[in-house]
Amino acid sequence: MSDVTTTDLYEITMALSYLLEDMSRPATFSLFVRNLPPERGFLVSAGAEPVLDYLSAFRITSADVEDFASALHRSPSDVSALDGVTFTGEVRAVPEGRVVFAGEPLLEVTAPLTQAQLVETFLLNQVSHQTAVASKAVRSVLAADGRPVVDFSLRRTHGTSAGMQAARMAALTGFAGTSNVAAAVRWGLTASGTMAHSYVEAFPDEETAFRAFARAHPGPVTLLVDTYDSVRGVRTAARVLRDLGRGPGCAVRLDSGDLGGLARRARVELDCSGLPDVRVIASGGLDEYGVDTLVRSGAPIDMYAVGTRVGTSADAPYLDSAYKLVEYDARPVMKLSSAKVTSPGRKQVFRRPDGDDVIALWDEPGPPGAEPLLRTVMRDGRRIGPPDTLPEAHARLTADLVALPADALRIRDPRPGRAVYSERLSDVTADLTRRLRSPRSPRAAPGA
Amino acid sequence: MSDVTTTDLYEITMALSYLLEDMSRPATFSLFVRNLPPERGFLVSAGAEPVLDYLSAFRITSADVEDFASALHRSPSDVSALDGVTFTGEVRAVPEGRVVFAGEPLLEVTAPLTQAQLVETFLLNQVSHQTAVASKAVRSVLAADGRPVVDFSLRRTHGTSAGMQAARMAALTGFAGTSNVAAAVRWGLTASGTMAHSYVEAFPDEETAFRAFARAHPGPVTLLVDTYDSVRGVRTAARVLRDLGRGPGCAVRLDSGDLGGLARRARVELDCSGLPDVRVIASGGLDEYGVDTLVRSGAPIDMYAVGTRVGTSADAPYLDSAYKLVEYDARPVMKLSSAKVTSPGRKQVFRRPDGDDVIALWDEPGPPGAEPLLRTVMRDGRRIGPPDTLPEAHARLTADLVALPADALRIRDPRPGRAVYSERLSDVTADLTRRLRSPRSPRAAPGA
Repeated sequence: MSDVTTTDLYEITMALSYLLEDMSRPATFSLFVRNLPPERGFLVSAGAEPVLDYLSAFRITSADVEDFASALHRSPSDVSALDGVTFTGEVRAVPEGRVVFAGEPLLEVTAPLTQAQLVETFLLNQVSHQTAVASKAVRSVLAADGRPVVDFSLRRTHGTSAGMQAARMAALTGFAGTSNVAAAVRWGLTASGTMAHSYVEAFPDEETAFRAFARAHPGPVTLLVDTYDSVRGVRTAARVLRDLGRGPGCAVRLDSGDLGGLARRARVELDCSGLPDVRVIASGGLDEYGVDTLVRSGAPIDMYAVGTRVGTSADAPYLDSAYKLVEYDARPVMKLSSAKVTSPGRKQVFRRPDGDDVIALWDEPGPPGAEPLLRTVMRDGRRIGPPDTLPEAHARLTADLVALPADALRIRDPRPGRAVYSERLSDVTADLTRRLRSPRSPRAAPGA
Repeated sequence: MSDVTTTDLYEITMALSYLLEDMSRPATFSLFVRNLPPERGFLVSAGAEPVLDYLSAFRITSADVEDFASALHRSPSDVSALDGVTFTGEVRAVPEGRVVFAGEPLLEVTAPLTQAQLVETFLLNQVSHQTAVASKAVRSVLAADGRPVVDFSLRRTHGTSAGMQAARMAALTGFAGTSNVAAAVRWGLTASGTMAHSYVEAFPDEETAFRAFARAHPGPVTLLVDTYDSVRGVRTAARVLRDLGRGPGCAVRLDSGDLGGLARRARVELDCSGLPDVRVIASGGLDEYGVDTLVRSGAPIDMYAVGTRVGTSADAPYLDSAYKLVEYDARPVMKLSSAKVTSPGRKQVFRRPDGDDVIALWDEPGPPGAEPLLRTVMRDGRRIGPPDTLPEAHARLTADLVALPADALRIRDPRPGRAVYSERLSDVTADLTRRLRSPRSPRAAPGA
């Protein structure tokens, strides 16, 4: 199946009608998140890079046309107007790694209506998923308060592609490594991982297992100590490491039980065994909440491995995202259905050095000293400049986090940052709402 | 990146040690879900088919070896023992679509230790995700109480591959269609979808939009009526459909607001317009809980579209799954860490016509009249028989649902079905626990 057919059928039914009606004027769609999940003080923008790759390569082939026809129970000739369609439009996007808030466009697509509509499903899918996971992952980094965090999520993400993106998002937000080999190789990340309980069980006893592992891995090793009894496991690990003269760079991993209490006992055992350089790693069902509790308790844990709950963004596995038409043929448009009102027109988000962000119409000058977040990243269907890199995205995130109020950074009960509408955008929204609510009035004229 | 490198690094570190120690005897790993999520009375087994495809094709290439070496900061020659490894083992699996409960093995892999270990990450990933989504999706079908349900999840699943699996799981559990074109084509499903709010907004007014849509689509059409005002939208849709002599097969779709109340008003409008055959479809943030509430209220809704919350299994986005070594070289093994005790040995699950399932050792005869759920589906690395089909899986699910107690089928506060250990499995577990807890005793001998 091609990426192009992995789309909602209605993109095709609409496109066919647009082509029939000759509605090929430029349209602008705005992609934004209506509301933040309850326990998020901010979002981390992500997904723009895969979206640009997709749009650069977008082309409907005759094989795709046959699939569309088959899905619609129509003949291929009824759908052939779509054959060869590519994406020739413009994209303005908030670069990956920027901190964003509810209502702020993350991406605006301006292209002939059919093209801008056809790409909706993929764009929503990528930005929603990756922004959700990045916004979850960063919280583990914050909770760990300087201690390294690694990604162990691959085994329970929603498929392996989701696992690749989870590793990418982990790196973007400052994780020290990932268990995912393919992701480590692809993005130049540190691969992290040691042994499973099955490894220990496959040997006659724990000590034999630890010695065999050290034999196979002459560099620093991490020994998993909770297969049978964590306290005994730490003691055995300490004995093996001391006997073999290993220490610096090595670690023991606790994966179950009272991680804080066991970490204290492990620390004492290791220190009293002359192994002060052997670190204690904790894993097992952790996300930012568990890490926060352990860090606040002063547990002597040197590194946290988080997995399932972060890779699936378990407490907020989706975002309330939308891809809304805001302008067609230079005419601002909007939707009025209850509780889902959108605001019309192409937009810009201005970040003020102090105070709330301002969402404005795209051609407004913006408040003095404010930074525009949306950048033009694609024109005529071609990327402007080279693809963004993870280190660049990470650097942007770091700068934005430093500038955030502390109460937005809180792990529990954060106070979300927010954006307000500019005066002009408020006026245009109110004006168009009035016109649309009165069915007899003429619709806003082009350019209004 | 190959599927083979999309794995946890520790599978490689362990495999290298096993090869060095010449530990190539047969191992059995058991894949099961420790506990059901709170609002699940049962799980729907899924993922076995993609797993068998993966195992059939599994082969470590020299490119993979280079990636492993790079991730481990070792030279390729240190890892070259893995070059050319394929999967030559046996798989016993619960076929897709069977109802299963906590603790029951969904899959048992018996293969040379290295092979059985190397495939862990992929197997856990696929079975956990697909079983979670299937177990969520079936609940919408049950809640709809005979009304058709369609899958609109693609835009917010965790990537498009997850969207493909969500559509497959929807079909497996009895959905009437999916919005996902590629999934519809690949699995022969009904593709479903109509228009977005953007479509209506792109036209000067709603009526012009509806007429244009009907022009492009001579067959039955569904008109989205809530872009501006749902009640007015239904009236406009009724006028257009009546004017054009369309009716049977057509529908209006409500996507926001008080869906039950609006459906009643839509039904009255359509009936009084002489359009009793025009159906009412509801969508917008629905999953089984919303559908259940609407169905119980008697809302005149003929079809439900569910999306995001089902495709991400939002209230239980992951399962507490495990892939545990239960036997190595004919020696039963187990893990003792607190709260995560496993039971040793290869197993079989017996379904009794009445009463709880029984988890037994694989060579026990099982209770009289009980059906064994685990079937041998791969031997010597090759599938036994042709791939399973979705209609077969769906038929299995239907039969199992019919046989389930009503309180396990409940949408809210279900009473989970359960499995008990056979006497022999209980004895073996207790015996091995005793031996492992006493560090001085010899370990269970091979064959014990």
